[in-house]
Amino acid sequence: MADWQEITGGITAPRGYRSAGIAAGLKPSGLPDLALIVSDVEAIAAGVFTTSQVKAAPVDYCRQRLQAKQSARAIFCNAGQANAAIGNQGWLDALENAMMVGQALNIPSESVLLASTGVIGQRIRMDALKAGIPKLVAALSETGSDAAASAIMTTDLVTKSIALETTIGDRPVRIGGIAKGSGMIHPNMATMLAFVTCDAAVSPILWQQMLSRAADQSFNSITVDGDTSTNDSLIALANGQSRTPAMTEMGAEAEKLEAMLTAVCQHLAKAIARDGEGATCLIEVQVTGAQDEQAARQVAKTIAGSSLVKSAIFGRDPNWGRIAAAAGRAGVPFEQENLKIKLGDFLLMENGQPLPFDRKVASEYLKQAAADACVPQDLVATNMSNDLSVHRGIIKQRLDNPVIISVSIGNGHGSGKAWGCDLSYDYVKINAEYTT
Amino acid sequence: MADWQEITGGITAPRGYRSAGIAAGLKPSGLPDLALIVSDVEAIAAGVFTTSQVKAAPVDYCRQRLQAKQSARAIFCNAGQANAAIGNQGWLDALENAMMVGQALNIPSESVLLASTGVIGQRIRMDALKAGIPKLVAALSETGSDAAASAIMTTDLVTKSIALETTIGDRPVRIGGIAKGSGMIHPNMATMLAFVTCDAAVSPILWQQMLSRAADQSFNSITVDGDTSTNDSLIALANGQSRTPAMTEMGAEAEKLEAMLTAVCQHLAKAIARDGEGATCLIEVQVTGAQDEQAARQVAKTIAGSSLVKSAIFGRDPNWGRIAAAAGRAGVPFEQENLKIKLGDFLLMENGQPLPFDRKVASEYLKQAAADACVPQDLVATNMSNDLSVHRGIIKQRLDNPVIISVSIGNGHGSGKAWGCDLSYDYVKINAEYTT
Repeated sequence: MADWQEITGGITAPRGYRSAGIAAGLKPSGLPDLALIVSDVEAIAAGVFTTSQVKAAPVDYCRQRLQAKQSARAIFCNAGQANAAIGNQGWLDALENAMMVGQALNIPSESVLLASTGVIGQRIRMDALKAGIPKLVAALSETGSDAAASAIMTTDLVTKSIALETTIGDRPVRIGGIAKGSGMIHPNMATMLAFVTCDAAVSPILWQQMLSRAADQSFNSITVDGDTSTNDSLIALANGQSRTPAMTEMGAEAEKLEAMLTAVCQHLAKAIARDGEGATCLIEVQVTGAQDEQAARQVAKTIAGSSLVKSAIFGRDPNWGRIAAAAGRAGVPFEQENLKIKLGDFLLMENGQPLPFDRKVASEYLKQAAADACVPQDLVATNMSNDLSVHRGIIKQRLDNPVIISVSIGNGHGSGKAWGCDLSYDYVKINAEYTT
Repeated sequence: MADWQEITGGITAPRGYRSAGIAAGLKPSGLPDLALIVSDVEAIAAGVFTTSQVKAAPVDYCRQRLQAKQSARAIFCNAGQANAAIGNQGWLDALENAMMVGQALNIPSESVLLASTGVIGQRIRMDALKAGIPKLVAALSETGSDAAASAIMTTDLVTKSIALETTIGDRPVRIGGIAKGSGMIHPNMATMLAFVTCDAAVSPILWQQMLSRAADQSFNSITVDGDTSTNDSLIALANGQSRTPAMTEMGAEAEKLEAMLTAVCQHLAKAIARDGEGATCLIEVQVTGAQDEQAARQVAKTIAGSSLVKSAIFGRDPNWGRIAAAAGRAGVPFEQENLKIKLGDFLLMENGQPLPFDRKVASEYLKQAAADACVPQDLVATNMSNDLSVHRGIIKQRLDNPVIISVSIGNGHGSGKAWGCDLSYDYVKINAEYTT
């Protein structure tokens, strides 16, 4: 069993953090669009960013900042305009944002990290943003996580948030996180963003290593439509306010912390996949028997990303042929005689050959699993009106009950997971009918 | 201008080939399902096959045969059952098929190459196949190309066929080809297949090299849904019946032959992409300014394969942001300041920044281009009744008028193309609603 428990509070659950989210008029809809996370003290900072060659100014900015020093006091995020593909002006705006937020918080601008999400190729509405900063700083509070989680949303249907607590020595240590991201670039709407706060004391190198590994097992293992955005950013702060001894290398306690960090990232990643554009259910692909973890994850991601598998799940069709074919093209060598495929508890294929199974019963499993994984539409509506507490239990329940595809490709010890969602008419509708 | 002309006759246009296609009862629909291509003399044979780890018995069979000797007399193909994922029985059936066809043609079974397409995990209906072979051999003729092209179809809406002629020395040399493939695995329906015939005299090594390069620039540069099938096969025969001198190394004449071979493969590949499940138009992505051809093709394929780009084209939305984002994640390094994007004649982005353009006019271009690329439904219906000559002009016209996306990523000399199709409601419908 997991060595931690879920608690409330999101990114402000760990000690020494405040956050806020306000509507400053950057989004045409008038919904919240500025978010701020502040640590009481300088925190160790780590980041993982988009690998795209086309990247937003705040991504370049954070990479430079974190290269110069691995610590920060604040993360400032705007939604509405992605600050991507607008040339040097984007870079100048990023610098000005860091400066303004630094001044308002009375900290060096070098201690402010940045993220943006929204329409590509449009300049940030700087006047609105500028006017919003004092209001945003005034709104900072130790219960401000939900407000921040709402303010970073674009096409998301629900906020994504989690906090976990464990004990290190005899002291509680907490990690919180919020995220956004639906389609990777919804009519020019860029981005998967995730911000993580932690009150453990960790060395910069170790924290970055932990975050990179956690990202591989979470955000790098989800797929909505295979499109990487220009703004993808995962930023994690560790401010030491739990007063636990500083960790500088791996060991039992560091492993415990990393496991909890991974769990936080996996929760957020699954929440993003589940909220994929047009998706009706979360799909978890579990691969075992591979040579190593990386090979297993590669097979899992290929299956989770297959349009044919995704369409079949949307159609509640227990289509082992497509799962086998996706596994086969993952670029990982295996003997097809060893291939074994399960859908939930149904063994569909063994020794590379299909087994007789009750197609109707298997389809019923898919229907039931998908129903369990669904958020009732009225609760989605409730969420949009910001009554976040109501539907939190539902979100957790549907994330805990994905449609499960298990695949074994041999006798190796490598195992790995990936998450995705089904491909529905609504995905095409959302992405084809919207015209900018 | 191209150094060749289009002629009629498909795979029987080159000298010394006969072919046939008949309905033997393997397909539940009763449509034609056995095809045979025979060369009067032993022909040099080359092949390119699926890279999937999960592969059909005929793929294993052809690989082994071609490793042992690079020549063949016949290609035998069945549609209806893919002979994939049925264990050792599939291998035994493949061997028996080669033996039966060899006996019926009075040639060694080693000279028979095989291909299958249809439902994965089902054994070939061997009784029906066996009974069909004499009928198939009796139907062989020098005008049998269309019959063979029809017999290899599964979910294809139209047959795919071409023949080109050039002059080498003072003698005509011809290459013909037929192909099938729609979605890569349509409810367990495997496969892209292409068969090419040529009457030039070429050494085995040179013919294989030419075919591999041609495949890279054609079948390996198309994408419908990113799914590689278990049965993908491209087989090419060169029987020397043009009586031209044997080519053993590259030179002016070999280059001419390879260019024509590439054109044949590109025509067939584009026809497959255009016939992608649910597609309304063919998309051609042209990339220039890359370091080399491979990098250019990689960017082109990533754009052509992006679900977001494909959805946008279906929506007739000139969405430069998605094209830029897809280019950025292709894994090819470039400076985003150098990025330039055109849609048809409309310059949408230059120096990595969007340009003002008339969205309505650009959308109209897409609508017009897509309309030009469409096959009127009544002509599709005509085709299904096998009156192939009627719609051939239409097919050519729509393949010659794709929606064109041009992208430049720098100042390099590498350029490359890829082809795909848009992503429509019908793709999801075809792949979700069908239940086996």
